[in-house]
Amino acid sequence: MSEQDKQIVDEKRRQLLKIGAGTIAGVSAVAGAGTWVKHRVDGVVQDEFPVEVSPDYRSMDQRDVLLTFGMSPKLAKQYPERNLTFGEETAGPIQPGEKPFNFQNHMINFATAHERADNDRVGYTQLDYSLEQACWYGMNNLAPLQSTGVPNSGTLSWDQSDLHHEKYPFKDSVEMISAIKTAAKTFGAVRVGVCRRDKRWDYDPLYDVTQEKTLTWEEDFPFEPKSVIVMLTDMDYEPMATAPMIPASATAAMGYTNNTIQAGAMAKFLRGLGYQAVGSGNDMGNSVAYAIAAGLGEGARNGTLIAPTLGPRVRISKVYTDLELDDVTYDKPRNFGIMEFCEHCKRCAESCPSQAISMDDKPSMGPTYPGCDDPKYNWQGLSGMRKFYTDSKKCFKFWSENGGDCGVCITACPWNKPDFWHHRLIDASNAVTSGVVHTMMKQADILFGYGNVNDEQAVIKFWRSGIDGDFT
Amino acid sequence: MSEQDKQIVDEKRRQLLKIGAGTIAGVSAVAGAGTWVKHRVDGVVQDEFPVEVSPDYRSMDQRDVLLTFGMSPKLAKQYPERNLTFGEETAGPIQPGEKPFNFQNHMINFATAHERADNDRVGYTQLDYSLEQACWYGMNNLAPLQSTGVPNSGTLSWDQSDLHHEKYPFKDSVEMISAIKTAAKTFGAVRVGVCRRDKRWDYDPLYDVTQEKTLTWEEDFPFEPKSVIVMLTDMDYEPMATAPMIPASATAAMGYTNNTIQAGAMAKFLRGLGYQAVGSGNDMGNSVAYAIAAGLGEGARNGTLIAPTLGPRVRISKVYTDLELDDVTYDKPRNFGIMEFCEHCKRCAESCPSQAISMDDKPSMGPTYPGCDDPKYNWQGLSGMRKFYTDSKKCFKFWSENGGDCGVCITACPWNKPDFWHHRLIDASNAVTSGVVHTMMKQADILFGYGNVNDEQAVIKFWRSGIDGDFT
Repeated sequence: MSEQDKQIVDEKRRQLLKIGAGTIAGVSAVAGAGTWVKHRVDGVVQDEFPVEVSPDYRSMDQRDVLLTFGMSPKLAKQYPERNLTFGEETAGPIQPGEKPFNFQNHMINFATAHERADNDRVGYTQLDYSLEQACWYGMNNLAPLQSTGVPNSGTLSWDQSDLHHEKYPFKDSVEMISAIKTAAKTFGAVRVGVCRRDKRWDYDPLYDVTQEKTLTWEEDFPFEPKSVIVMLTDMDYEPMATAPMIPASATAAMGYTNNTIQAGAMAKFLRGLGYQAVGSGNDMGNSVAYAIAAGLGEGARNGTLIAPTLGPRVRISKVYTDLELDDVTYDKPRNFGIMEFCEHCKRCAESCPSQAISMDDKPSMGPTYPGCDDPKYNWQGLSGMRKFYTDSKKCFKFWSENGGDCGVCITACPWNKPDFWHHRLIDASNAVTSGVVHTMMKQADILFGYGNVNDEQAVIKFWRSGIDGDFT
Repeated sequence: MSEQDKQIVDEKRRQLLKIGAGTIAGVSAVAGAGTWVKHRVDGVVQDEFPVEVSPDYRSMDQRDVLLTFGMSPKLAKQYPERNLTFGEETAGPIQPGEKPFNFQNHMINFATAHERADNDRVGYTQLDYSLEQACWYGMNNLAPLQSTGVPNSGTLSWDQSDLHHEKYPFKDSVEMISAIKTAAKTFGAVRVGVCRRDKRWDYDPLYDVTQEKTLTWEEDFPFEPKSVIVMLTDMDYEPMATAPMIPASATAAMGYTNNTIQAGAMAKFLRGLGYQAVGSGNDMGNSVAYAIAAGLGEGARNGTLIAPTLGPRVRISKVYTDLELDDVTYDKPRNFGIMEFCEHCKRCAESCPSQAISMDDKPSMGPTYPGCDDPKYNWQGLSGMRKFYTDSKKCFKFWSENGGDCGVCITACPWNKPDFWHHRLIDASNAVTSGVVHTMMKQADILFGYGNVNDEQAVIKFWRSGIDGDFT
């Protein structure tokens, strides 16, 4: 931060303390000043999965995952009506007189966007797109297309032929989980948790779009998973601050490359110890649900994970293994006060360029977005979990139009901050903090100038950060 | 750091301040308290390459690089006497009655060490070796064998077929270097510098051991490089503290994987901007010389780079490109006081298990180790640069016997520290600090308990760090 920036922040802080003194004092009283730092890291351990799940909740068929469907000519042919649920003029069910623009076209638009770089358009130049392509380069060479959900590829292969013939003689479950977490750190993960495998979160059947075939856990997957190791990698603050412009897509791509390195390495590590293991990115199951189960964060209004101190600025990888811990050793879900906060803060939804994020006051057991009752539009039919449902088709349509994968809901989120002292305020939120305080926190965030989107200055600042920023 | 550890450090600090008060005050007076932090980052810019190089200094033939020679059955056959310069009993020229043990055997020993993991030997168990193999997994799948110097492989390919047909219209050199450094940060590099290509530091001819053929810059390399981008990735403190045991090899392997990701991404980025570029790890040239030229650190007694605040706990990658900056924009070499420090501190040499590191008081223009005058033993014939010459054959022989790649000289170095306030003392060293102060700094380091090697407790602490350490 430059001297000038520091002075501005100091001035803002004075304003904030003046206008919000009473409320801030309230936060302090609720959270207990000395416990803040501890609280934000530890959270409050939950006895069970902290999100209400209906007894008739069904695992998702991977053929219904939007990007999988979008990648598959076979599925597009099989379900032509699904392909046409993207109107050209507006997202939502196609209106009379509206020209259909199908999903396959959107996918092609999206995948070739870098070829249409425009050096007169800040954030969409050859410079921005070259960076994005470079960030994908690692993943593309390690496990191609895993970001779109293709399983069993490259270093995330299901092959177990390098499985060590002897199991390493761990003394107990604590030694196991400590070894796993130490390895995760060594591979560069910023957080790691281990939970039981939960069939509810796994796609079933799985679908390999490159071969256009379904895969079952029982017949195709090489073993019965007992545990899932969940790792987070962080995306950089400065490029993410340019969302929805292309530097934000670049740091997301780098997140996928890091995911692939970390998940591949963890699976290789476990196989070397005699345990069957397969690394996974967006394929094979719901990463957010597993990250919640492993105590790494909570589900957010925008549908992503929010992790304490990092916010939604993370990417998730997971490793399925037949290694099993005893019940007390598994990580447990934790309450960091995030879901409560999301109820009162709607900043992501207000910022979303496609209005894909719910503005509801409370989470619900099924979608509430326009068109959700029309099975022709809402063919995915997701329901049975209490959360905020986003309209993923509107979201993706914006990606295609934008020529990059957005990220506005990550940038706008008050939990997304570089690590300065005054940002720890937001982390003091917890289950007993009142809605008034949450609203105040969001307003404070706006006052400080955080969470702006479509900010051309952020692009200029990002590309200068290599020589202006801290690089020690 | 645990509470107990903190108390121990506090106690040590009190002792240090008591016994060393006068000397410490001296450091303070020399460096000027307020300038320490700035100094350690910036260094003092040098007009020219800061190491004396003889006018008749010759580029190294890559066939003479130890690991390249060791990987090549063809070269072993061509130069059988070189292969026999590794005695079985002692390193150095083979003595009468000593059974020869050739380099090829050492290479095989080294490469298969993980198959001989021993769960009764702390630091060499299946757990340790599985981690090492997992850390190599990324590099092995991106650019196989680049750590041993194989050029033109995988993501470090010389292929330029994805070169963009138009050059991005950079405004000036400053915009270029800022874009490069911003990209390096995004790829995960911890430092980056850009210098002119200098033929003296490039291997010539190059050698591809997988194809057993020499390659020339003029005929085989796709373009004439103008600049070299040098990036550092850091290795983790805790596994490195176990050197020469296998967790230290693991973090080095992860360094190579990160190098490969970063160099591959940077080359891809530049090609996307219309500039020819090839990523490189240990292949193609002397990474230490290029890192010095790019202002990232200084050459150390042990032959590695020492970077301020990170010490020798770094790995270096480089990218050759035809992008050219104006003279004032290139990074320049910098003096951080490191070479001066190395003259007075011999801790790496004292700790080296194979006595491969020079104990000389001053650097020299050629090797001084035992056997260096015998051309049969010293067939590499390196000379012509003022530095401390290590006996790389002794070093590698220990790797083979150890079953891992050592790292003791990195661990023992007083510049290798986690980032606590009291470690910044060492960074206050500079060109005008006296030798008495350097010696005091080294003693202070020993008093604090840093730089221990062969420390079984470090292995136990490392494998507990996933649950005991900071992971926020």
